[in-house]
This record gives sequence, C-alpha cells and structure tokens, in this order.
Amino acid sequence: MTGAAIIIGAGDATGGAIAAAFARDGLTAVPVRRNADALAPLAERILAAGHACVPIGTDARDEAKMVALFDRVEADIGPVEVAVFNIGANSPMSILEETERRYRKIWELCALGGFLMGREAARRMVPRGRGTILFTGATAAVRGGAGFAAFAGGKHALRALAQSMARELGPRGLHVGHVVIAGAIDTEFIRSQFPERYARKAEAGILDPDHIAANYVMLHHQPRDAWTHELDLRPWVEPF
Amino acid sequence: MTGAAIIIGAGDATGGAIAAAFARDGLTAVPVRRNADALAPLAERILAAGHACVPIGTDARDEAKMVALFDRVEADIGPVEVAVFNIGANSPMSILEETERRYRKIWELCALGGFLMGREAARRMVPRGRGTILFTGATAAVRGGAGFAAFAGGKHALRALAQSMARELGPRGLHVGHVVIAGAIDTEFIRSQFPERYARKAEAGILDPDHIAANYVMLHHQPRDAWTHELDLRPWVEPF
Amino acid sequence: MTGAAIIIGAGDATGGAIAAAFARDGLTAVPVRRNADALAPLAERILAAGHACVPIGTDARDEAKMVALFDRVEADIGPVEVAVFNIGANSPMSILEETERRYRKIWELCALGGFLMGREAARRMVPRGRGTILFTGATAAVRGGAGFAAFAGGKHALRALAQSMARELGPRGLHVGHVVIAGAIDTEFIRSQFPERYARKAEAGILDPDHIAANYVMLHHQPRDAWTHELDLRPWVEPF
Amino acid sequence: MTGAAIIIGAGDATGGAIAAAFARDGLTAVPVRRNADALAPLAERILAAGHACVPIGTDARDEAKMVALFDRVEADIGPVEVAVFNIGANSPMSILEETERRYRKIWELCALGGFLMGREAARRMVPRGRGTILFTGATAAVRGGAGFAAFAGGKHALRALAQSMARELGPRGLHVGHVVIAGAIDTEFIRSQFPERYARKAEAGILDPDHIAANYVMLHHQPRDAWTHELDLRPWVEPF
Repeated sequence: MTGAAIIIGAGDATGGAIAAAFARDGLTAVPVRRNADALAPLAERILAAGHACVPIGTDARDEAKMVALFDRVEADIGPVEVAVFNIGANSPMSILEETERRYRKIWELCALGGFLMGREAARRMVPRGRGTILFTGATAAVRGGAGFAAFAGGKHALRALAQSMARELGPRGLHVGHVVIAGAIDTEFIRSQFPERYARKAEAGILDPDHIAANYVMLHHQPRDAWTHELDLRPWVEPF
Repeated sequence: MTGAAIIIGAGDATGGAIAAAFARDGLTAVPVRRNADALAPLAERILAAGHACVPIGTDARDEAKMVALFDRVEADIGPVEVAVFNIGANSPMSILEETERRYRKIWELCALGGFLMGREAARRMVPRGRGTILFTGATAAVRGGAGFAAFAGGKHALRALAQSMARELGPRGLHVGHVVIAGAIDTEFIRSQFPERYARKAEAGILDPDHIAANYVMLHHQPRDAWTHELDLRPWVEPF
Repeated sequence: MTGAAIIIGAGDATGGAIAAAFARDGLTAVPVRRNADALAPLAERILAAGHACVPIGTDARDEAKMVALFDRVEADIGPVEVAVFNIGANSPMSILEETERRYRKIWELCALGGFLMGREAARRMVPRGRGTILFTGATAAVRGGAGFAAFAGGKHALRALAQSMARELGPRGLHVGHVVIAGAIDTEFIRSQFPERYARKAEAGILDPDHIAANYVMLHHQPRDAWTHELDLRPWVEPF
Repeated sequence: MTGAAIIIGAGDATGGAIAAAFARDGLTAVPVRRNADALAPLAERILAAGHACVPIGTDARDEAKMVALFDRVEADIGPVEVAVFNIGANSPMSILEETERRYRKIWELCALGGFLMGREAARRMVPRGRGTILFTGATAAVRGGAGFAAFAGGKHALRALAQSMARELGPRGLHVGHVVIAGAIDTEFIRSQFPERYARKAEAGILDPDHIAANYVMLHHQPRDAWTHELDLRPWVEPF
C-alpha cells in the first residue's frame, strides 16, 4: 500500500503536471476535479508511463464530499502523504460591477475549498507526525490590484490559511507551503486568450507546468530542518 | 440636508466611538448593527450632545438589505460621505477543530459584509467624485497566526478588498483606507475576559476607542494630495 | 525653556514645512542642513510668523557633530521633544554602472545619518520617558526597484532602524514612526525636472509639503495608547 | 575550462557547504574569506572528494580587491556561473549603546560587500546572458527586531539590492535570488554559545548546512521560465 498525493484542482495544466510529477515520484496520484470524465486523459497519461493514478470527481467546496474523499483515499489507496490545493478562479471585475454571487463563489473556490482540504489532510497527517500540504498562490495573494477584489480576497485568505496552518502544524511534523505563481502559464487559456503573451513561450517567457510541478515535489522532499514555507515562481522576463 | 457617515458594526465600543466622532465632526452618524434596540444608548448619547444620529438595525451580510440601507440613507439623510466597516469576529480555533460553518460565518462577517458595504458606498460616491471608505483591520490582516485560519482569512480578504478598491477608486476621487488595530481595546470584553490585560489600562496599555476614532476622522480630512491608505494603531507597551 | 524639534534635512521643501509646522505647534524648530546660510529664508519665515526657530548648519553623517548638535540644543533651547530625519538621496543608476563611492554615500545620507540622529535623540529622551522620533521613508523603503539598489538599500536600512527602535523604545515611552512618502512632492526639483508631473499640481496630483508636515505633527500628538508606527502618504492619482 | 562558483563568506559552515555543493555539481568552487589559510581544510575536503576548488583570501569590502578577484577567476578558472554572498554579522546591541563604528562595519559586511560582489558578477554575466547570483538573508532582512538596528539594516539593504538586481537583470538572463534563513544553523558558534538550542539537533531542530546548500544548487538549476526570487528556510520546530 503506497502513499497518496491528492491534487485538488487538477483540471488545468498545472494541477495535471503536479499530479503526474508526484506519480513519477512514487506516490499514487489522486487528481481531483468536479468532472471526473475530464480527468481521463491525464490518468491515462500517468498510467501509460507506468505510474499509479486514481482520478476522482468531486466538489472541493462540499464539506461532506471532502471528508468522504479523504476517507476513501486512506481506505483504498494508502496514507495521504501530500495534499495540494490548486484551484484558481482569476476573473477581474470592477468593484462597481462585482456581484455578491461571484464574490462568494470565488472565495469558495479559492479559500473555502483550501480550508476543507487543509483540515482533512491535517486531521489524518497529524497522528502520523508527517505529511506535506501545499497551496497554490498568485501575485493576488500578496497584492490587491484594481479589479481584483474577489480574486485577491480569496487568494489572500488562502495565504492566511497556509501561514496559520504552518505555524500550528509545523511543530507537529507537517510541512505546509505556499507557492506564489507570478506570470502566465503555458495553458490552452493563455494560448487562446492572450496570443501575444503565448508567443513569448519560444523564449521561455511563460511558465512550463512541469517546471512548476518540480518545485512542489522539491518542497515535499525538503528535510524537516530546512523547510520552505513560501517561494515565488516567475518567468525571467516577468516584471515585478 | 447634511452628509451621512455609515458605520457598519457599531455594536462594540470602537464602532460606537467612530460614530460619535463623525457626528461631532458634523455628519449625521448612522450606526448599524443587527439589533437596532442595542443602538439606543449610543444614539441617545450622540443626540444628547447635540449631534445627529440615525441608528439602523440590519444585517451587513445580506445584499438586499445593504442596498436598501444605502438607498434609505441617501434618500432620508443625505449623501454618504463616509462609510466605515468595523465588524470583527476574532475567535481562535485549532485548524483540526475548525468547522465549515464557523469558517464561512467568520468570512461573511469580516469580508463579505465589507465587500457589500464597499461596493454600495462606491456606487454612490463615484458619480460625486468624493467620499471616504474605511476598513478596520487587525494584526491578523497581515499575519496568519496559529489558530487564526478563519479570522486571519477574513481579515486578509478585507485588506485585499481595501487595496483593490483604493487602486481602482483613488483616481476617481474616493479615499479608501485600512486601519490595522493591534492590541487590546478598552471594551467590556477585555475587561471581563482578560482582566490582567485590562489592568494595563491605568498605564495606557490598551486602546481607547475615542483615540482610535480620532484617526478615522483624521483620515477623512486628509487632503487628496496626501492620502494614507494604511496605518497601524498600537499601545506603546504592545510587542510587535 | 520650551522644547525643541530637530529636523535633520531641512534643505528641501518637506523638511522646511515640517520645521515650520512644529514651530507653529509651539516647539522651537531646529532645522538642520550642511549649509547654515541656506536655512536663513526658512528661519526668517518661521520667525516672522511669531514662532521660534534656531537654524543650525552641520553634517548629519559626522558622529561628533551630531552629538554636539544634540548637546547644544538641550543646553541652549530645551529638551528635544521631536527629532525628524528627512534626508533623501534619490538618484537611480544601473547596477552595472553604480560606483562604490555613490553606493556608500547614499547609504550614509539615508541610513547612517538616521542612525546617529536616532541614537542621540533616544539617549536624551529615554531618561525622560517621552519623545517622538520620525523617519521619512519612500516607496524604495519597501520595494527595491530596477536601478535603485543604492537608494532602496539606504531606505530599507532606515526602515529597519525605525522598526528596531520602535520595538526597543516604545515600552520605554518613545514614539518611533516611519512615513512612506509615495509620489512627487511640490518642490523646485519636480518643477524643473519633471514639468509634466508638476502640471498635475493643479489637480492635487503632487504632494503639498504642508500636508505632509501635518501628518508628522499628528503623529507627535497621538496618545500613547494608540500610536502609529507606519503610514503612507500618496496623491489620489498616484498608481501603487 | 569549467565554470566557477564564487562563494563570498565561506568561513562558516554554511558557506563551506555551499562551496562543496557547487563543486559536486561540476563547477570549480572558489570559496572566499579574508584569511586564506583558514580555507585549507574546506579545500582539502572538496579536492579529496575529487572535485575542483580554488580557495582565495581577500576582503569583500574592498572594491579593488573584488574586481581583482573576479578578473583572476575569469582568467584562470573560467566564467563565473554562480556568485553567492554569504557574509553575516549578527550581533545584537541596544540602540542606546550601538556605536558608529559597529553600525558602519556591519553594513559594510552585510551590504557593501554584497553590492561589490553583485556588481562584479553582473558585469561579467550580462554579456553572456546567463548566471546565478544568490544572497543569504535572515529574518532580520524582513523585520527589524529590538536590538537589531545594525544587523537588520544591513540585511534589509542586502534584500533591497537583491530585488533591484533581479528586476533589472532578470530580463537580461541573470537569475538573482534571496534566501531567508530563519533559525539556528548547525555551527560551532551555536554549539558553544547556545547549547540548549544545539541540543535540538537530535530532532532536526537546527539547520543542516548541507540542506541549506542543496537549495542554492536547486535555485541555480531552475529553468528560466520558473525562477524563484525569494524563499525561506526554517527548521520545523522554529516559531515564526
């Protein structure tokens, strides 16, 4: 019975690459998104490479479903050694036009889901005195830009969660980290919506999901006398 | 028809002092909390001093009620010149014991209410090209301490809102500020729950609500060539 | 024998306005810059308004001269109630072209002088258990921009000094503050070198030195249960 | 002709471990400290392991000597691919007792030396469009604690340098990073001066220099579409 790496928000290129990287690293990847069918290509790719993968469709914002997810993984696959929260919801809007529904939903996606995953992971890892919990942040986690009240609010809340958990759970053996990804990622979204930006791919001007994923695995392997709580990842050409 | 200063979260000593201070400053104070009856003593005190006050009971987390609040104040009292969001919900809890219900409620109190107030204030102030919107923060707005995942999440999100609004609305004439209150405030809560801390009152070791309020009025009066977006307030004895 | 307010770096419009403001507030203003003659117009203006002013020419980077300055003021004028360090040295340069001489000089102006003033002020204020020490910061105090290695280094060091002093001396009764001034100030330098920027004066787009100064006096008057350690000042139109 | 990794401040365990790690990684390690003789044991260890090492004794605060160092390494060994600035000078002192001589010397060690190394490295790397420049930071780089005016000032200035260089030189192909080391390191100094702290070594409560070094090599290998500018390293038991 091997350990498991749960990746919540494996619908995009980044989450998929993180799942694949932990599978290569010897854990059973458990990529999670709402629509399980959409995970099939990712799972096939991981399995075809000879690694273990159990894709699961569920809603990260639903407490009962998150509890059930962790129960199922621990029962069927093995101890959760790694839990990654990778859901984003970047969608700018003037504060004058922002709606209560969007503001709430973006927070649920960015922060509430992260809380539920973080708590369920912590509850299972603390008795074992080990485990890695990683949260995907963004520039909006450290700066509230014009038009980003909702997204920055969600990402700020997620960063607060990561800090609070690191301070409480570090001394109990859990490594909690926060990764600030700054810049465009090589995804279909950027390819189709920001073609000028995507054109910078040729000069390594946008983030390669596999390179992002390598840092998550690196964080998991850091010995406990030298843990990183926060790091940023940014293409060389990105202004900051 | 004078201008109005809406203070959401006027149930505690700080919110009451802020309402009274803006009333003394010439605006009609509109202290708001869920239970209107509980505002009677504050309103009487303000009115007895010869100033204007219209207390209103409503729920800051309810979009329709917040829209109605601003509509009513603008129709019956005058233009909202100042809007202050002062709701807190500081209640520590281990991440292992935190509940979805509490995590959500604390965010609704700290951040969702702030968003609704901020948006409604902005919608009315932007056409006039003036107005002051202030948010009460805490140390938890800039640091996620152990046991404060929920409160720090809400306060971080509120700070992100303040930054985002300041960056969007400053160039349109609105002054948006965030006040980081660090340390115990002279309240019944501190008096009864933290008597050793309250004992420091004699040496000015806890924050006087009137002194906090003076800073809110000061921010409102800053000329627009020299606006402060963020300041901290802390007793001289407070470690930081 | 009244108290004194020493303002180091009173050569520019900001320092002059701060000196005048503390004189209006009842203290004897002691504006300081290297060239005493250049302080004559400022001193005349303050005296003509019926306030007290003793301009002194000395070099803030020279330890013996700073000790002598404080000794002289305490002996001849009265206790130093306020000490303000306002020397700037904003001068961008590519890291590839920056010289050791410039890098060192900018640090001496920004930070070493601040340290000498801060220490001499603290040594005289601590036995009295009161006093206000204020440092003028800039955006470069919180962000190292391209081309600003020297200036940002000096301003970062000054901010570290302010924080360190506040944490050590607050509990001993001294109020230590740091003011982050972000944006162009209404000075001859901006008028002549950045005319497009100066043109924004008409719409309050650049900082009025008197408005900056008002905040320094405000900080001095804050009661000790509600001290601000850091605040920013920024024109409404300034992006941040 | 292989590339070189210059490590300024290789006198302590951390600098030595970083030098050894880059030697293992295939570069010629050039550990630097004032006293060349003291580098002999380190150099022997690296050479005995079959790797390349050229220890050099020189003063990092002397501009001419730093220029000569880089000239010599580029002429005799090969292109400088990595430059690490690792000099510390952590020595607390009350602001009331701090001396001009100490304040200046600590800045020269922490920041001036970093500037000279950074500039000389950049001048040689920019024409080649590649190279890694890393600075060792500390908690004092982001917080000015009581009694740390000098050390925090130096480390804040060094962090400003790192940020400024990253923003200027990133788009020219150079990776500039800043590592915040928080917590006691396994050194003779901690062993002898803080025995209670050293006792935590058994439970991985102090930083292993080799584990620190691994992160420096990792940063050097990050592909340029996903560079980290800043990360922290902290033992699991360390409060923050």
